[in-house]
Amino acid sequence: MPVPSKAVVAHGGGPTAVINASLAGLVRGVRASGGLVFGAPGGIPGLLAGRFADLSAHGDELWNEIALAPGSALGSSRQPLLDGDCERIVEQFRRQEIRRFFYTGGNGSMGTALRVERCARAAGYELQVIGIPKTIDNDLMETDHSPGYASTARFFACAARDAGEDNRSLPSPICILEVLGRNAGWIAAATALARRHQDDAPHLILLPESRLSLDAIATAAERIYRRLGRVFIAVCEGQRDERGQPFGADVDRPGSLAHELASNLGHTLARALTAKLGLRARAEKPGLVGRSCGLFVTLADRQGALLCGQAAAEAAAAGATGVMTALRRDSSEPYAASVFLAPLERVAGLERLLPADFIASDGSDVTPAFLDYLSPLTGPIPAWPRLPGF
Amino acid sequence: MPVPSKAVVAHGGGPTAVINASLAGLVRGVRASGGLVFGAPGGIPGLLAGRFADLSAHGDELWNEIALAPGSALGSSRQPLLDGDCERIVEQFRRQEIRRFFYTGGNGSMGTALRVERCARAAGYELQVIGIPKTIDNDLMETDHSPGYASTARFFACAARDAGEDNRSLPSPICILEVLGRNAGWIAAATALARRHQDDAPHLILLPESRLSLDAIATAAERIYRRLGRVFIAVCEGQRDERGQPFGADVDRPGSLAHELASNLGHTLARALTAKLGLRARAEKPGLVGRSCGLFVTLADRQGALLCGQAAAEAAAAGATGVMTALRRDSSEPYAASVFLAPLERVAGLERLLPADFIASDGSDVTPAFLDYLSPLTGPIPAWPRLPGF
Repeated sequence: MPVPSKAVVAHGGGPTAVINASLAGLVRGVRASGGLVFGAPGGIPGLLAGRFADLSAHGDELWNEIALAPGSALGSSRQPLLDGDCERIVEQFRRQEIRRFFYTGGNGSMGTALRVERCARAAGYELQVIGIPKTIDNDLMETDHSPGYASTARFFACAARDAGEDNRSLPSPICILEVLGRNAGWIAAATALARRHQDDAPHLILLPESRLSLDAIATAAERIYRRLGRVFIAVCEGQRDERGQPFGADVDRPGSLAHELASNLGHTLARALTAKLGLRARAEKPGLVGRSCGLFVTLADRQGALLCGQAAAEAAAAGATGVMTALRRDSSEPYAASVFLAPLERVAGLERLLPADFIASDGSDVTPAFLDYLSPLTGPIPAWPRLPGF
Repeated sequence: MPVPSKAVVAHGGGPTAVINASLAGLVRGVRASGGLVFGAPGGIPGLLAGRFADLSAHGDELWNEIALAPGSALGSSRQPLLDGDCERIVEQFRRQEIRRFFYTGGNGSMGTALRVERCARAAGYELQVIGIPKTIDNDLMETDHSPGYASTARFFACAARDAGEDNRSLPSPICILEVLGRNAGWIAAATALARRHQDDAPHLILLPESRLSLDAIATAAERIYRRLGRVFIAVCEGQRDERGQPFGADVDRPGSLAHELASNLGHTLARALTAKLGLRARAEKPGLVGRSCGLFVTLADRQGALLCGQAAAEAAAAGATGVMTALRRDSSEPYAASVFLAPLERVAGLERLLPADFIASDGSDVTPAFLDYLSPLTGPIPAWPRLPGF
């Protein structure tokens, strides 16, 4: 009887609503080929401690359930690799005869996976390293989209649609929806998805790829307010002004703990617009709710995540290393995707911003091409009916 | 052929995810008895202008669709009645031979309905006035619950569950979920609904009915942090400290426009806790998204709203006036409710706070009795599965 292959899986960075689907796909894939896969609790700290729990011991029934849950069942961390950490991780693998390492995450985590692979090679330890894509930010290179993105995109598209109807019913002059995403505007762009009527929210979409000054935002907002009696603005939490300065994060005490608070950009932008225009403004910030919301998971997103996990197991069984599983869109209508392997070098540390042809010419909206890209991933988002004449 | 009865309907205050279901129920009820019902666009301003649109002209097909949409299809306002406004509204009714007035709203709006009824009586104009309950805040007297509440409660229960799993996966020391609700803690209390495991979020629920000092909150938060390595706090946007002062609304310029900004309490409380405990904190604030979210509408909520609208039409046809349709719970398991008529005097301007037996003895959690009250209204909210040992 051959000795079964032994693998470890870990997660890096923020969880998503479908990262557990990737994990379930991986574990089922490994189990199908008779291998063993262990989980490193809490990501990097679990890897450094060599505390691995046998995930292949659990049957399909549990994995079918786990696949539906948001958050990361394994836990995760944002802890960076310090000097010597790579060597310690490889040493843990050697000690426990782990020959395969799966790492789920975004572009930073793919950098970590690449470092571990190089470190193992330098140490003469035979280790296969396979990345599994995951990020709501959708800023990974190579893959058509990143698992986690479509569900968050659907959340914020519905949030703009529903809060937009609320705002149309009882207009407040300025209503701001702060959207997740630091340097890339993929999620902010998604707020355009459910618009049907000419006055549907959002009326302005601020994208990190297209930096406007506060004056320019105020001018655009005032113009819309004069036309509609209200203006609904979607803004990325990482939005910066034309000089690259954040509008709103609490920057009054740089270096302090307060400085590390998550962004409060929407609210601060609301205050700045009130001061400039003399119009009342309010801001909403769903934040983590938007990336974890189980009810908004889309079929394409969950299936893509499952596929990326399962394909990672298959790639490892076929001898691959130094690659990330990535999604290729085979058809948009009906939507169909398959998996290919992208070299980690072409993903690690790189950031895919919204391409120019997805951004409207005035910089504060998206193009139909972007909506064509996104809508197969979220599924249909119907517009709400209106009373004729209202 | 008898002249059909002519009625007007209007809305007051913030919309909900099911106010259109009440409207659809009303219009269908009026149509069924051969009457006419007109809508006053935008609430009070529409009433004052006497701009009424015939809603009974639209067939059931449209109303079945409208019943599903969040926001108010008629529009609404928070404009108060000024001196002489009541008389002007009655004069509009007299001019257009309107003999029935339906007003959908919360306790403030029921006060408006009562004033209009008294004003018509004083003017010797025969007018039936019927209130239809609506408020996410659930602070209306007499009725078992207010249409709009259960759907918002479900949103925030799921938000706490899902963001709680996210926070468990990647612990941040302090995570605050700012919840809707000014003086009553009904929605904040609902965040407890999906808890199953001993460490499920939220770990602290701050209720306006039970005012804690910042010191007391910090002490409780630190104790939980020491045990779990994280603390998840649900707080009502209207929460005040032990002296009745808001923790966080931007109160630095009272009387200014900035003062009227919607609450930013969660974020400011996060900063205050960071300063006190030296722990990083973040805050999420779904705000309007939580009251308008179409995907979270519960069956009981929509049916209750429909019933309250339809019963208002029936009550008017039976000659009632000066009443609000209200829900009586006939059974919790299975859930069943019927409508009765409550005198407007017993609702107008009054506020139903969380009763003492729904608040845990330490003031920062709810009792099982509250969960028994709420869960039939939201339907089941399953807990997410966990990996054994994680």
